[in-house]
Amino acid sequence: MLAPEFVPGIGDRGAAEFYTIATLGSHSALQILKGAHDEGFRTLAIASRETERLYRSFAFVDEVIAIRRYEDFMATVPQLEQRKSIIVPHGSFVAYLSLEEHQKMKVPYFGNKAILAWEASRELQRQWLSRAGLRLPRQFKTGSEIDRPVIVKLYGAQGGKGYMFLRDAADFEERAGLLAREHYILQEYIIGVPLYIHYFYSPLTGKLEIMSMDRRYETNVDSLGRIPAAAQGRMNVDPSYVVVGNSPLSLRESMLAEAYHMGEEVVRVSQEICPPKGLFGAFCIETIITPDTQFYIMEISARIVAGTNLFIDGSPYSYLNYSEPMSTGRRIAREIKHALLTDSIDRVLDDATPL
Amino acid sequence: MLAPEFVPGIGDRGAAEFYTIATLGSHSALQILKGAHDEGFRTLAIASRETERLYRSFAFVDEVIAIRRYEDFMATVPQLEQRKSIIVPHGSFVAYLSLEEHQKMKVPYFGNKAILAWEASRELQRQWLSRAGLRLPRQFKTGSEIDRPVIVKLYGAQGGKGYMFLRDAADFEERAGLLAREHYILQEYIIGVPLYIHYFYSPLTGKLEIMSMDRRYETNVDSLGRIPAAAQGRMNVDPSYVVVGNSPLSLRESMLAEAYHMGEEVVRVSQEICPPKGLFGAFCIETIITPDTQFYIMEISARIVAGTNLFIDGSPYSYLNYSEPMSTGRRIAREIKHALLTDSIDRVLDDATPL
Amino acid sequence: MLAPEFVPGIGDRGAAEFYTIATLGSHSALQILKGAHDEGFRTLAIASRETERLYRSFAFVDEVIAIRRYEDFMATVPQLEQRKSIIVPHGSFVAYLSLEEHQKMKVPYFGNKAILAWEASRELQRQWLSRAGLRLPRQFKTGSEIDRPVIVKLYGAQGGKGYMFLRDAADFEERAGLLAREHYILQEYIIGVPLYIHYFYSPLTGKLEIMSMDRRYETNVDSLGRIPAAAQGRMNVDPSYVVVGNSPLSLRESMLAEAYHMGEEVVRVSQEICPPKGLFGAFCIETIITPDTQFYIMEISARIVAGTNLFIDGSPYSYLNYSEPMSTGRRIAREIKHALLTDSIDRVLDDATPL
Repeated sequence: MLAPEFVPGIGDRGAAEFYTIATLGSHSALQILKGAHDEGFRTLAIASRETERLYRSFAFVDEVIAIRRYEDFMATVPQLEQRKSIIVPHGSFVAYLSLEEHQKMKVPYFGNKAILAWEASRELQRQWLSRAGLRLPRQFKTGSEIDRPVIVKLYGAQGGKGYMFLRDAADFEERAGLLAREHYILQEYIIGVPLYIHYFYSPLTGKLEIMSMDRRYETNVDSLGRIPAAAQGRMNVDPSYVVVGNSPLSLRESMLAEAYHMGEEVVRVSQEICPPKGLFGAFCIETIITPDTQFYIMEISARIVAGTNLFIDGSPYSYLNYSEPMSTGRRIAREIKHALLTDSIDRVLDDATPL
Repeated sequence: MLAPEFVPGIGDRGAAEFYTIATLGSHSALQILKGAHDEGFRTLAIASRETERLYRSFAFVDEVIAIRRYEDFMATVPQLEQRKSIIVPHGSFVAYLSLEEHQKMKVPYFGNKAILAWEASRELQRQWLSRAGLRLPRQFKTGSEIDRPVIVKLYGAQGGKGYMFLRDAADFEERAGLLAREHYILQEYIIGVPLYIHYFYSPLTGKLEIMSMDRRYETNVDSLGRIPAAAQGRMNVDPSYVVVGNSPLSLRESMLAEAYHMGEEVVRVSQEICPPKGLFGAFCIETIITPDTQFYIMEISARIVAGTNLFIDGSPYSYLNYSEPMSTGRRIAREIKHALLTDSIDRVLDDATPL
Repeated sequence: MLAPEFVPGIGDRGAAEFYTIATLGSHSALQILKGAHDEGFRTLAIASRETERLYRSFAFVDEVIAIRRYEDFMATVPQLEQRKSIIVPHGSFVAYLSLEEHQKMKVPYFGNKAILAWEASRELQRQWLSRAGLRLPRQFKTGSEIDRPVIVKLYGAQGGKGYMFLRDAADFEERAGLLAREHYILQEYIIGVPLYIHYFYSPLTGKLEIMSMDRRYETNVDSLGRIPAAAQGRMNVDPSYVVVGNSPLSLRESMLAEAYHMGEEVVRVSQEICPPKGLFGAFCIETIITPDTQFYIMEISARIVAGTNLFIDGSPYSYLNYSEPMSTGRRIAREIKHALLTDSIDRVLDDATPL
């Protein structure tokens, strides 16, 4: 039964106004908080001294708590617990909080924390994606196995930092020094174009939606093509893959059914490996598409990704389902609102963090 | 005089609801059907077993007919004839149906089928564009004539598949084996940036509109620049031009008048070569822009192109004419609706397929 | 006190309808005039014979004055003075009018003409940006100093025309002939990805807004990466940087606070160098982002830039502040309207051109 406070229309902005959506001021916080505001929630950004001013400049941010470093986030938890807060996590939570801190934090949390371990470990992630039937690039165990160009990815690499391109085994030998004390994987370099697909899976309706698509904007690798081949040699540029932004894409419609199917399979398997809820809310499959129009899956992000920031005012794909601007951030807030209104908020929160 | 059923306001969604917009579930079908729904039509997708689930997932698709292969489309024609259906064709119709099947199909058809022959033949297309005064890349008749890089385009190449880059005559010789039994053209490789311009010409108002712009996202050629020049050699990558998506662009405004003029000339000449109606509805001119800001025309598509899928929620250009999200798909539906409401539906249908 | 004619609601479209927003038909005129129309102003385009037809094709353009060449603009000034016109300048004003003509023109002018001299001179611009604490590429005084790749920029280069890439001092020697009679600067070639940030600073509220972001679409340099490295050599292609369009981008949110800060510093210093008003309205900072996520500033444009044409129907960033499509052009018109309604129009016009 709905408690009286869940009745829509109470207060100027409906039931949601009694709850605060809170997130770390970074990554996709503007989108999350704008979406929360548009769905009627109060909003709170936990920002740093450097970013505080930015988040305060927006009318839809009701409150800002400034902390010295994002790593100090856990110290704000008592304040969040006092409010009726719901945390919407994004990539910076993974970057700044440990898995242990994630578990320890008892503030109501949108999403399933159990999935974090499967995402954080490259081996478990690979198991998950393989079981979902997705096509994965080859991995090499040692440098001597390398028989084609590879991407080296350091463990814990964030935002493309710590990626390295290696042409062949000899190239690996030359740089072995750099890698000596590091944990890393050696992933086949797939020749093709990148495309990142943003999904939303609703545990309330059981339906998957494709929200939008993008590609990353990476420095310096996305500028190499602008340097004439002859000049590149003398300039001695090594590609780096540091993500500094995103650009929008659409996918050939004849490949959309497969993209949709991949998302469904990833959700299905997640319910087996992290039962019963599995993965829900926003997630992203990062693909490379080869000339024979095959998707190779590089990685999965089990939450909202920064590429959705291109679509704060809606996307061509979300417009198919919503004839209003529906960002992924707003979609999350709407799911929480629907859960509140139907007295099923537990279905969209982590089990260890009831409201 | 308007028949009673054309009077707006009959039924909840106006006159259009008595008609079904039908199309093949591929290419730009989502945009076409969403636009049709938004203008008040009933909607029907003819999908395959693989894509059926995708099209059924959208609320704006009223009905799905599933066929085994898209080539079996003609078998659904009797069903379409029983309904008050209007077919809106797109690129997949050209890919899966022959010119003969197009002609045989008597379902009311948005567009002018006579133009198909001029588009399908590279020679006729070249005549058309030349008469319109457009700048075309040089063509070579034989490999020995080649004195600069060329693009080889196999006859009937679809979606960039079957394109090949050749550096010079020697390169042609080496690959002559691959081309031995093929029909192809040898087109000068123009060094410059691609830009695709999406137009809509209204036979009801006689006015041309620029709807949006894009560039294709092609694998693997759009990933070559991300591979260091030194590595490319050893990797032995040949460029391929398979289209897997699109990305949005805007055009320098000082060049927009010429873009508009090119569209007008293409329409004008089409009325001479396929009198009296010529080309109407959506079309696209595919250009390469050189450093002296000249447009070179690679091809024309005489119908809605997939690049418009970037703009299902409207484009910066369509917003100039419509202060609401106006995709090319919706623009088509609006034209049909206006034709119905003014008792001039024959002006937007192929002559052999009256309502 | 508000004069009676400023009272909102007079006439069908409010107070603004008594004023005409006028601009040169080029660059970002469509956006400026559409925005002006949407805010209730009358609109006027001064177009050429070639572009007249284009501007007349839009319903939001109330009037077109056709001149033979854009350089003849000054001849229309008496007509503009007779109307209650306000000029909104853009890049083409700088291209076609001299600083002297700018000063001579007494039509009410949105913006501060004093800033033009600081923008036109590369030395003054460098002083301004340095004082704002921005990171600038190294400059070389003579060819012999060159110890890394550079971009040569001819004085007065417009739209990327007159830019040249040089690999090293030897490359400079070879081309010295081309540069012999030219004035130019030699700017360090920064390896990284370009990102252009569009700002709006409101003198009425004292608040800075980030409106949108883009990168330029340059021919032929943005096509080089599509040519295999091995082929580039024989084709002997030199990069050129002629801007023919733009493509949209978003910025990593953790870098947004710095982007915002850079804009604030640029405005702050402008109030010292061109007191008291400094720079207001639209402007753009053109950056290159390196793999250590540093912004290098290539240039500032002290007015609306063409990259904003991607966002005539709004941008993800402007949507954060306005839950309606807010282009930079519309934002300008809204600022003028607010100034009219609060009797402070002098705060948004150049001091020498009161209403």
